[in-house]
Amino acid sequence: MEINNDTLDKLVETITRRVAERLGQAGVLNMPSSCSTSADACSDCGQCVVKKSGTVAKIIDLGAVRLGSKAGVPPGVDSKMAAMIDHTLLKPEATREELAKVCQEAMQYGFATVCVNSSNIPYAAGLLKNSSVKPIAVVGFPLGAASTQAKVFESREAIRNGAEEIDMVINLGALKDKDYQLVYDDILKVVEASRPKKVKVIIETSKLSDEEKVIACTLSKAANAAFVKTSTGFAGGGATVEDIELMRRVVGKDMEVKASGGVKTTEDAKAMIEAGANRIGASASVAIVTGKKAKASGY
Amino acid sequence: MEINNDTLDKLVETITRRVAERLGQAGVLNMPSSCSTSADACSDCGQCVVKKSGTVAKIIDLGAVRLGSKAGVPPGVDSKMAAMIDHTLLKPEATREELAKVCQEAMQYGFATVCVNSSNIPYAAGLLKNSSVKPIAVVGFPLGAASTQAKVFESREAIRNGAEEIDMVINLGALKDKDYQLVYDDILKVVEASRPKKVKVIIETSKLSDEEKVIACTLSKAANAAFVKTSTGFAGGGATVEDIELMRRVVGKDMEVKASGGVKTTEDAKAMIEAGANRIGASASVAIVTGKKAKASGY
Repeated sequence: MEINNDTLDKLVETITRRVAERLGQAGVLNMPSSCSTSADACSDCGQCVVKKSGTVAKIIDLGAVRLGSKAGVPPGVDSKMAAMIDHTLLKPEATREELAKVCQEAMQYGFATVCVNSSNIPYAAGLLKNSSVKPIAVVGFPLGAASTQAKVFESREAIRNGAEEIDMVINLGALKDKDYQLVYDDILKVVEASRPKKVKVIIETSKLSDEEKVIACTLSKAANAAFVKTSTGFAGGGATVEDIELMRRVVGKDMEVKASGGVKTTEDAKAMIEAGANRIGASASVAIVTGKKAKASGY
Repeated sequence: MEINNDTLDKLVETITRRVAERLGQAGVLNMPSSCSTSADACSDCGQCVVKKSGTVAKIIDLGAVRLGSKAGVPPGVDSKMAAMIDHTLLKPEATREELAKVCQEAMQYGFATVCVNSSNIPYAAGLLKNSSVKPIAVVGFPLGAASTQAKVFESREAIRNGAEEIDMVINLGALKDKDYQLVYDDILKVVEASRPKKVKVIIETSKLSDEEKVIACTLSKAANAAFVKTSTGFAGGGATVEDIELMRRVVGKDMEVKASGGVKTTEDAKAMIEAGANRIGASASVAIVTGKKAKASGY
């Protein structure tokens, strides 16, 4: 009997749905003793349908049409790369349907996080519940020109609503004014309010000279942020190999660096990682991990 | 004796400075009984140096090089138009020097307000103190995608810091989702938190269909906002005559309409006012009221 791809897809879908249904009725059965429910401790055993039934059921609920043998990760996907990606949807007119699609893709492909505006955190956190994908919120976004207290409040509220990381924008005007105390304080207050969640500091490289990039990274590290991040995606420009190298040089090995803005292909992402990035922010994440061309761009 | 323009300018500056100094030492002297300190009740008597010595001194402190006989309003300026303008500086990298220039221009030309990001409100409010120019803050700007509570907090804090009006951005994603209750509630909560200060609702016309513009205006009026406003200036597009006409039609006469984004010349501003706008948001405000071409654009 010959089975074509379409038939195979439908078969996989039907079987996965039924397995998920049974698991849903009976709870998680026959979990091997080596298995941990913690995403971080995943042993990569390939029995995700058994171990992560919640995630699988959610993916199907959201309309997945195919699941690979490792539930949620279609064949041919660079899983290591996927685990470094913040799958991002920040346009202000994003609808729930678009947000659901991004969450579904993140669970299916194994992206690290889904990055959304703070008003969308409750919805995204609900969809991602029980999965290993973290919802993350941008704060003071994209200008960074809201008051420190407003950024602090927005961070706290996003975390209350389920955000697992905070991507804040630096105060660019204060940086241009060489008011480093204000810039530092702005970051520090958000870091303190968000603890123990990680804070990324978006320095908006396209608006800075190289010296200003060094200053921004210095202050971010001094204020105990977890990451420096290149761009909002709303100010032109975006991540470049040179900027990532510079940022990595300044912050050293014990701080994280996120490349964001204009990262659209596998090659872009690889170049950023080679230059020192350990997180990628992108909307073309599926294209990046599958090597296929993205259908549409936009942050 | 012939006096050239430069000499005249210096003379006027010196005399005005000395008069302001003396008034500063002696308090406001010889105030006519018809004079009111309230800007709204100004009788246009032309004795501003006597009546508004605080404003005059501030203008000079900020580096004014020329003051007309009506202190603060250079000759040839369309004062009526000036009083309808929100003089705007919203780019994230704006420095204190640039902010001071905008505040100085607003006092000098008699603009209604200065519109800045919320982190710059304390500084602008300090500069504008004792003048008739109001500092106003943008909130949830420019995406409108921050959570309602974050917008409410930012509004409250901006008002605490001296903001006299709040320009908030509507939740565009919720509007696209037809979640009118969320859109209404988002506006209402900011309106309630800001009372008695006026709230403007930026509907971001460039991202909306005509029907959606009608819906956005309807919800803004229902939620008791003081204004509907066309654009943030950060999303492409900007105010058009057609949009202002549509917005005025929908909200009627007892709500205010602000045209913002791309208003750069006297003609632009006049067209907006004829179409129904009663407030103009612009960075080219000086060019608009003097009829001269703006040196640089940018919101």
